[in-house]
Formats: sequence, structure tokens, C-alpha cells
Amino acid sequence: MRKKTRLILALDVTERAPALEVAEQVAPVVDAIKVNYPIILGCGIGIVKELASYSDIICDLKVADVPNTNRLIVQHAVSAGAKGVICQGFVGRDSLEACVDAGRRIDVFVVAEMSHPGSNIFINPHAEDIARMAMNVGAAGIIAPGTRPERIRALRKVVGKALILAPGIGAQGGKASAAIKAGANYVIVGRSIYQAEDPRAAAEVIVREITGD
Amino acid sequence: MRKKTRLILALDVTERAPALEVAEQVAPVVDAIKVNYPIILGCGIGIVKELASYSDIICDLKVADVPNTNRLIVQHAVSAGAKGVICQGFVGRDSLEACVDAGRRIDVFVVAEMSHPGSNIFINPHAEDIARMAMNVGAAGIIAPGTRPERIRALRKVVGKALILAPGIGAQGGKASAAIKAGANYVIVGRSIYQAEDPRAAAEVIVREITGD
Repeated sequence: MRKKTRLILALDVTERAPALEVAEQVAPVVDAIKVNYPIILGCGIGIVKELASYSDIICDLKVADVPNTNRLIVQHAVSAGAKGVICQGFVGRDSLEACVDAGRRIDVFVVAEMSHPGSNIFINPHAEDIARMAMNVGAAGIIAPGTRPERIRALRKVVGKALILAPGIGAQGGKASAAIKAGANYVIVGRSIYQAEDPRAAAEVIVREITGD
Repeated sequence: MRKKTRLILALDVTERAPALEVAEQVAPVVDAIKVNYPIILGCGIGIVKELASYSDIICDLKVADVPNTNRLIVQHAVSAGAKGVICQGFVGRDSLEACVDAGRRIDVFVVAEMSHPGSNIFINPHAEDIARMAMNVGAAGIIAPGTRPERIRALRKVVGKALILAPGIGAQGGKASAAIKAGANYVIVGRSIYQAEDPRAAAEVIVREITGD
């Protein structure tokens, strides 16, 4: 990714036509577009290839299986033209190594900490351990909550110069500039952009907020 | 599921034609067929509907995202005609509730413990907690390692009369009868069946091993 605007669109729409429409409008002002399983299951993995004609695509698959299955899942994302894939680290080192190995031509990002309440039960208490493991297996970076800049700051100390992507910005309450200032390389924004009357203008507002223009 | 043979086929092949061929051969002697993401990504979710003409299908999606995304993923499995879906409990109670809510017409199974080495780092130490949470949110059952009958026995105490599905039987070292004796309702077997010269005969051997005939 080119680190141009530091903004990634979470394209959490589930239908093909609006997805392509928003992607075309917003692509010029974002560094990447993130898609997840609902649209892939609805449209087929081919939607990744279609969207890749507008922007770099990150497949947010929260890959969370045994090593061999993880490897096959990540291979599908690579074949579909994704530039990045998001995996769960809690399934352990061997599962994650399989993702990094299958995704060595793209960026593998590991979920270190999440922001929904349930993530406080099992995942978040292990955030530093998961981030450290992600670095040990050669992941490109981690996912850390954009709603908690202090946690981005803490996880930055663990991952050094690796990438930090911060979702939860906008509708979920996080502030883009605060996440970037705390050490995130990219913020991930969904509804505030794709639900806006003018998605591109909404994205531009966030970019200006990030850059302080 | 009908609890007829107590055997579930893990159909971990990735191509449509051999998947349908094995399913047709083996369906008469298994209670369900489990499929995972590699074949769904390769063939589209429609493969679930095709396979469902032979057998009850469990979608092993290791669902591991935030509540709303989990809900949409499970809805896809339901729409495709699956009778069960496998979710990760590690992402927390709200994420799991979303799965159970979206899957209330089918069986939601929660991964309590896994058998690959990496699962010992974060997941397995929480197995009892995850199993308890699965019961609290109304899941149909849990996944527990067929390679470790003593762990099935321990988790049976947590889940009462709920279902326990035990993978890792056969090529991975677990013995079907030992897992059933320890309290599993179903064993899940993959390679020993679908890689056999005669998959149906291989499945029948396991059924006889289970029933002691």
C-alpha cells in the first residue's frame, strides 16, 4: 500500500452493484478497500478481482482455522488479487505461520485486539502476546482498535515499525487523527463513508481530518 | 442430525467434482458432511446446496468476527441450506450470540478446544470457559478434540446433554470408539475416508469400530 491518504475503506456492503459503485467513487481518495466474508459469500470470491480494478484490496477473512485450512484460505485471497489479508492470531503460532507462508507475496495483518465488548473476555487480554507472535512469524502488521488510542500506543511499542491498521473510526466512535497520532499507519472507516450521500466527499473529510488540512 | 451412525465426514477436498462424488458415495453411512472455506471459496456457496441433496451439511466456517459480520456470515450458511455451522467462541459472547441468533433454525457448534499445537497457546487454556459460554448463549453443542478423550470427558461435564463433535479421528491419530466412549456424540473423520480407494467402505469400517460390531 502506498501510504498516500492513510485511509482504508471498510466496504461492508453486501451487494455487488452498490459495492462497485462506492469503490469507484472512493478509490481515488483511499489507500485500500477492505472487504469481508458477507459480500464474498454473496457474490463469490470474484468480487475481489472486480474491486481490485479500482483499488488495492484487503480481504478481511479473520482466518481462524488449523494451519492447512488457513493456508488454503489465504491462497484463495492471493489468487483473487488481494494485496492483503486479515487473520486471527488467537488460533496460535502454527496457524498464523501458515497464513504468512501462503501470503508471502501480499501483506498479512493479524488481529491483536478488537473493539466489540465480547473481545474483552478472551482476545484483548492477550493483545500484546498476539502482536509479538505476529512479528515473530513475519506478519506485515496488526489490527488494533481505533477507538482506543492508548492501546494503539501500547501495541506500537510491541510491533516496532510494522504496520498498524485501526478500525472503529467514525460511526463506531474512534477519531481518525487521534488513532494516527497514537501510532496507527492507517485508519479503517466504513459506514461514515459508504452510507454517506456522497461517499467520496465523506472520505475526503476524513483525509483532511487526518492530515490536519 | 439423526444420530444414526455417529459419523460425520470432513469433506476437505477443494474441487467440486470429487467433492460431489465422495458425498454421493459416503452419504448413506454418515449423519452429516462438514465442509469448510477452501471449497466454498473455490466453488461458491452454492456447493453447500448441491451437497445438501446428498446429506445434512455442516458449514465449518470458524466464524470469528464482530457480531454484525458473524450474523451475516451465518445467515449465508442458513440460506445455502446448511443444517449446522461451526463458530469460534474466542471472539466473545456477543459475537457468539449473533451466530446463535442468526442460526436459530439450525445447529450452531462452538469450537471449545482444538488439536493443532498452536491451539495450546491461547484457545485450549480457555476451553471450559468457552464451552460454558456456548451453553449460556444457547449453542447446540461444541467441538472438542477427538485426539484427547480425557478432554472430551472433561468438557462433557460442562455442556451436560448438549452435542459434542470430535474431529481429529483417523489420519490425525484419534480413535473413533475412544472419542465416543469419552462422551462425543459424533466423530468427524476426513482423510481416512475421502482419500481411501473406496470411501464408503472406509466409512463403514469406522462405523463398525464405533458400534463395536
